[in-house]
Amino acid sequence: VSDLFWPGDERAGGLMSDVALLRAMVAMEDAWLASLVAAGVAPATARRPVQDLVRADDVDTLSRRAEADGNPVTGLVALLRERLGEGDAARWLHRGLTSQDVLDTALVLSLREVLDRLLDDLRAQVRSLRALAEQHRAAAMVGRTLTQHAVPITFGLKAASWLSGIVEAAEGLRLVRVRLAAQVGGAAGTLAAAAELARLQGLADPPAVAVALRASTAGALGLEARTSWHTTRSPVTAVGDALVTCTDAWGHLASDVATLSRPEIGELAEGRGGGSSTMPHKQNPVLSVLVRRAALTTPQLAASLHLASAGTVDERPDGAWHAEWATLRDLARRAVVAGSQTTDLVAGLRVDTERMRATLDAAVGLYAEQGSMAGVAGGEPSGPYLGATDLTITAVLTRARTFLEETA
Amino acid sequence: VSDLFWPGDERAGGLMSDVALLRAMVAMEDAWLASLVAAGVAPATARRPVQDLVRADDVDTLSRRAEADGNPVTGLVALLRERLGEGDAARWLHRGLTSQDVLDTALVLSLREVLDRLLDDLRAQVRSLRALAEQHRAAAMVGRTLTQHAVPITFGLKAASWLSGIVEAAEGLRLVRVRLAAQVGGAAGTLAAAAELARLQGLADPPAVAVALRASTAGALGLEARTSWHTTRSPVTAVGDALVTCTDAWGHLASDVATLSRPEIGELAEGRGGGSSTMPHKQNPVLSVLVRRAALTTPQLAASLHLASAGTVDERPDGAWHAEWATLRDLARRAVVAGSQTTDLVAGLRVDTERMRATLDAAVGLYAEQGSMAGVAGGEPSGPYLGATDLTITAVLTRARTFLEETA
Amino acid sequence: VSDLFWPGDERAGGLMSDVALLRAMVAMEDAWLASLVAAGVAPATARRPVQDLVRADDVDTLSRRAEADGNPVTGLVALLRERLGEGDAARWLHRGLTSQDVLDTALVLSLREVLDRLLDDLRAQVRSLRALAEQHRAAAMVGRTLTQHAVPITFGLKAASWLSGIVEAAEGLRLVRVRLAAQVGGAAGTLAAAAELARLQGLADPPAVAVALRASTAGALGLEARTSWHTTRSPVTAVGDALVTCTDAWGHLASDVATLSRPEIGELAEGRGGGSSTMPHKQNPVLSVLVRRAALTTPQLAASLHLASAGTVDERPDGAWHAEWATLRDLARRAVVAGSQTTDLVAGLRVDTERMRATLDAAVGLYAEQGSMAGVAGGEPSGPYLGATDLTITAVLTRARTFLEETA
Amino acid sequence: VSDLFWPGDERAGGLMSDVALLRAMVAMEDAWLASLVAAGVAPATARRPVQDLVRADDVDTLSRRAEADGNPVTGLVALLRERLGEGDAARWLHRGLTSQDVLDTALVLSLREVLDRLLDDLRAQVRSLRALAEQHRAAAMVGRTLTQHAVPITFGLKAASWLSGIVEAAEGLRLVRVRLAAQVGGAAGTLAAAAELARLQGLADPPAVAVALRASTAGALGLEARTSWHTTRSPVTAVGDALVTCTDAWGHLASDVATLSRPEIGELAEGRGGGSSTMPHKQNPVLSVLVRRAALTTPQLAASLHLASAGTVDERPDGAWHAEWATLRDLARRAVVAGSQTTDLVAGLRVDTERMRATLDAAVGLYAEQGSMAGVAGGEPSGPYLGATDLTITAVLTRARTFLEETA
Repeated sequence: VSDLFWPGDERAGGLMSDVALLRAMVAMEDAWLASLVAAGVAPATARRPVQDLVRADDVDTLSRRAEADGNPVTGLVALLRERLGEGDAARWLHRGLTSQDVLDTALVLSLREVLDRLLDDLRAQVRSLRALAEQHRAAAMVGRTLTQHAVPITFGLKAASWLSGIVEAAEGLRLVRVRLAAQVGGAAGTLAAAAELARLQGLADPPAVAVALRASTAGALGLEARTSWHTTRSPVTAVGDALVTCTDAWGHLASDVATLSRPEIGELAEGRGGGSSTMPHKQNPVLSVLVRRAALTTPQLAASLHLASAGTVDERPDGAWHAEWATLRDLARRAVVAGSQTTDLVAGLRVDTERMRATLDAAVGLYAEQGSMAGVAGGEPSGPYLGATDLTITAVLTRARTFLEETA
Repeated sequence: VSDLFWPGDERAGGLMSDVALLRAMVAMEDAWLASLVAAGVAPATARRPVQDLVRADDVDTLSRRAEADGNPVTGLVALLRERLGEGDAARWLHRGLTSQDVLDTALVLSLREVLDRLLDDLRAQVRSLRALAEQHRAAAMVGRTLTQHAVPITFGLKAASWLSGIVEAAEGLRLVRVRLAAQVGGAAGTLAAAAELARLQGLADPPAVAVALRASTAGALGLEARTSWHTTRSPVTAVGDALVTCTDAWGHLASDVATLSRPEIGELAEGRGGGSSTMPHKQNPVLSVLVRRAALTTPQLAASLHLASAGTVDERPDGAWHAEWATLRDLARRAVVAGSQTTDLVAGLRVDTERMRATLDAAVGLYAEQGSMAGVAGGEPSGPYLGATDLTITAVLTRARTFLEETA
Repeated sequence: VSDLFWPGDERAGGLMSDVALLRAMVAMEDAWLASLVAAGVAPATARRPVQDLVRADDVDTLSRRAEADGNPVTGLVALLRERLGEGDAARWLHRGLTSQDVLDTALVLSLREVLDRLLDDLRAQVRSLRALAEQHRAAAMVGRTLTQHAVPITFGLKAASWLSGIVEAAEGLRLVRVRLAAQVGGAAGTLAAAAELARLQGLADPPAVAVALRASTAGALGLEARTSWHTTRSPVTAVGDALVTCTDAWGHLASDVATLSRPEIGELAEGRGGGSSTMPHKQNPVLSVLVRRAALTTPQLAASLHLASAGTVDERPDGAWHAEWATLRDLARRAVVAGSQTTDLVAGLRVDTERMRATLDAAVGLYAEQGSMAGVAGGEPSGPYLGATDLTITAVLTRARTFLEETA
Repeated sequence: VSDLFWPGDERAGGLMSDVALLRAMVAMEDAWLASLVAAGVAPATARRPVQDLVRADDVDTLSRRAEADGNPVTGLVALLRERLGEGDAARWLHRGLTSQDVLDTALVLSLREVLDRLLDDLRAQVRSLRALAEQHRAAAMVGRTLTQHAVPITFGLKAASWLSGIVEAAEGLRLVRVRLAAQVGGAAGTLAAAAELARLQGLADPPAVAVALRASTAGALGLEARTSWHTTRSPVTAVGDALVTCTDAWGHLASDVATLSRPEIGELAEGRGGGSSTMPHKQNPVLSVLVRRAALTTPQLAASLHLASAGTVDERPDGAWHAEWATLRDLARRAVVAGSQTTDLVAGLRVDTERMRATLDAAVGLYAEQGSMAGVAGGEPSGPYLGATDLTITAVLTRARTFLEETA
């Protein structure tokens, strides 16, 4: 896995890679086959673990075949059956499922790894930012609004504000994490094939058996069971929105760092700036730049998921569904890369509190508002004019601690 | 309010209109002034209700002035002070707030009306769709995937599937509805001016007083109090995402109706189709068409909110914030119009179960899968091949009833 | 026309307003009726000017009616016929057209006014930027890359770079301006009704008559005639793309101004900054902020036009077309407002060349690259290290002059 | 190259791949080094071809290193110098360039291959559609508007309409193809290093030498020379817009095919439909579905390019530029895949003119408009009511022939 077009992509490792998707698809087939056997729908002889039947280099073959079928599942089922050889396992494999069941569930399984990785990064960021907010709780600096000097703040408050956005994004992520659901609907969401198999085997209440198969498969995969969402795609858009809410929070932080590390401001610096191919003195805020890049492109990917959701039609859609896969992959990987870069960025952030202080002391009009207040209420302006800065930092730190405890 | 460019816009009435925003801004100024007085920060003589001081036709003046200030609040404060005349109310008005506090809170108040209106419509849709799903629970029709005939479903299942998407969207909307928060941060989010005023009045613990002012103002407006979110904009993007999740669900439903009302299919028809300027025989599925229009344009508006969120910088941003206002307005109004149209659409939907039955009976290969299952498990295909259709409908109806009860 | 949600909106005046659209629709009906009569398809008695039959306050009625028909044309035709009273004009009005013909052409006519207004602004900007580039041709300043100091440039070069982007955008606009075409296709793009009328009147070669009617109508309106583009929407997306290319160029310029007017940098300032509701000392770069706002939201509007274009189906589409109208309106008005604001911004821009010089002199490592070159080629670094700055400025100025001459 | 997430991706082969980008970057370094020597800026001993110094598997190393530098160029230069060993070539390589020069030019070179490939496909489509329009010029079918039957058309007209959109898109592509320009600006767009080297070598008029180096490098690469466009990105957005205009045209065509191949309509069928994993009878319109997928996602990618363009700041931007690379890659590859699929789609399209005829004969009210015209003009309705269908087809075919001749 390498990507010259998206420096840092290797941070995402194999997450949402072809191989990860392949393994997740096979995991779904395996769980379903096991459920069929456990429920007595398929005979015990049909139980063969299938997860070891594929190799990483199968993705190439499957990928090439996928176009003819419109998705990679049909080819995978053929491949697995071929490798299972003759017998009950090959005969029962995939029976009752449709390709969308397998691919949707595999995407969900792959996304779960992404979400777990992101939550790790978010937790690390929360820890770093708590430390920064604590350490610089009282480090006064200029507050800026619409690019201009406004009133004083402390760097602790700025760190707490970043932290607040990150905790908020993380909580959104947790919410979608716990609601991840398997897709088990069959050809048109009715579970007709599964129920038919149950009937043919003489089981009582075939529809209930089919629903139970969904539940046991989902359970085996650690996912929620829910009625088929082939054409109601809010489970997909919810993940997309949560991911973008993360890149928003990181983009905001990175924009602040990029701004405050301008030489004329110089209040922040990345721990290790990137070099220039021609100017050795330069220390570019490379992580910030790369995080900003992600934040600029991911909202449009999430919009594509919504457009796909809105464009579904019939019992399974004619293009809208297909638009989701790579969009989710790109969105997820970019979020992982940006998340990991942000973790490094905040961990290594260098804070020049003296420069902050100097700028504050030299700023013009920074206490004009304070003076106006004296004009309103009478009396004399006094003190550092930091208002509830400290209380706010404490409130955010408390929320952050709760988050860390709840996700420990 | 009229809009030749967006037929049906009048359904949104005054929601998120200039006048609504003006009144909401004044409501915020009023609540804040009352809190200042109640807390003893401002003298009792400063308490003057300001809500009646503006008229609808002030929006014109304020709008013209807004560009010079970059937002409409500065002009509004000047106008209110002028109308209050000399005295304590004019002197104390707005003290401690910044323009973003007023505008953000006003937008939240305006959005609350939008969300309430949408929840009404969603509840109406849920009721109509429950009735449709019940009534047509067993009305068999062709299930279609990738535009082609697949296996049988019932129209009740299709209605339940729409219903499921709509309940999901409605629950997302409720979630953002209860979390709507006031914005009270002062110039740079520190509440410095408010605390300074408290100090000048000799109150104990001025920062705590400032925080209490935020709480009492938020409480008076029926909003949550939270630390300043001037630059952490997930409260805004969460509303946008929830609105788009609604238009997604409606767009999906409308696409289905538009497709199934094609003359060659003829299984559904809008209660009252739109005419043609030149072809009197035509019955266009106008509501579906207009709902689809909304679903096609709103995801990009929500993406703009995310881009604005990611692009915030400093203590208050230099353009990103300004991009939110009209985007939220357009997104909210389009959602309201589409929601109202969808309510009419589902209420008036005509279902031709005979045509459904006829198409089903004529369909080729619809039971091929059923035959395959017999090939796998042995035995003979039998029955209508509807699997867990009935159980699924029941599950969705149960969820819908719970939703209606919880929101009653 | 006022808009609290989009400060500065009044700069767009009546462009792309409901009234402008109404008048443009009537202009189309008028031109078509005149063509019918001139070609002998309709009798001379059918020739009645219709442009004065509508009033501004008709938009309200038409707007309310538009939803039932799915567009405002059907209602307009009914209104015009009613006002024409009995007789040939009422009978012949609109015959041969479909509502999309009228609305598409009206949008094109409205957009033409927008493009002309934008070209005026672009010309004004080109003049201002030429003057800035000339005046500050040699005013050395720090060149910045990835936020850090790189090598010297002059402010003249920066102005020339902005100018280059603006000329490029303007040339794109001219290109779409000259290609604006009328829409005349009839119900399904065949001109069947027009040809039928010609046949019924006994004219020779009715299809050729119909095509000639299209040509004469387009000619009367000053538009290109082309085969019906009901479902091939690149004429629409081309306008959208050209508009966004303008807001891109302005957004870039405004971002530079916002950055360089930060107090720590202070090299540029808007002629007249906006105030703060609470901090009288602040001079916010309001125009830059408002222009940036437009640049952040317009790309998504242009994307909506492309999505609509890609989503067309049949002979006239079921929602995709309807999504274009308000999108075009919003995109066009925002471009006009941003264009006008940019004109003011560059006209009033204050350039602090002393501050530029001082920053340059204090910058660290700015000539490191120059030293490296001496290391490569031998010899000693010397001179201001401005390379082809002057030649580049001259090249851009030449191109700008050509543009001004060609559009004079 | 395989992609399970985007079936059909292998159609794009190595276009815009990591290896293609690597080779294009090296081509740029090579052309520049040759120009330096040819101009007498570098000594003849510095001329060493560098194109064979890299291997496909270098992309992995370069990709991993790219993050630290923020782009892959710095690592590439180091690698090439290492492989050149000691000597003049290593010393002179890349002197005068900045990383953005190399990467921008490499992207342009890679895009040129994409555009050429697309133009081949567009030409093939034009040929197929011409044949379809000719063959079915008179094959009457129902014209549909807003999903409903309107008036008759012929399938030749529909094919001509698709053709018209495709020729239009192709002409836009040609326009950007001929304007592709090299990027040669040096660290901040001034060509200072190149001019400095010329000065150190004692050449006359060093700035002019630097500009001439740009021209000769561009010429050697077959690209236009233009003043540096580091921060004026319309050359990038123009490519994006042209690509999306293609996917729009294909998406429209594919939507029509998907609709008309519904079993209830059955007028069109893909030459070879895709199978189902569980329903052997199904013939899914797979190519249409996959093309629609592209059309649904590419507009947002083009919007990202515009956002990047609008977000540039300074002499080289802090994230906006970096957002372009993968966006361009994805947009370009998806366009190539969709283009190739559309070529197959139109080449293999099966047209059921009998079914068209039958639907037309059974349609209700299809001649109602014709009757109305008789009511207006007097006389009797007569004939097939196809208006200028034939003339329109001829006009489009003529334009298509011109296009083919001009691009032969």
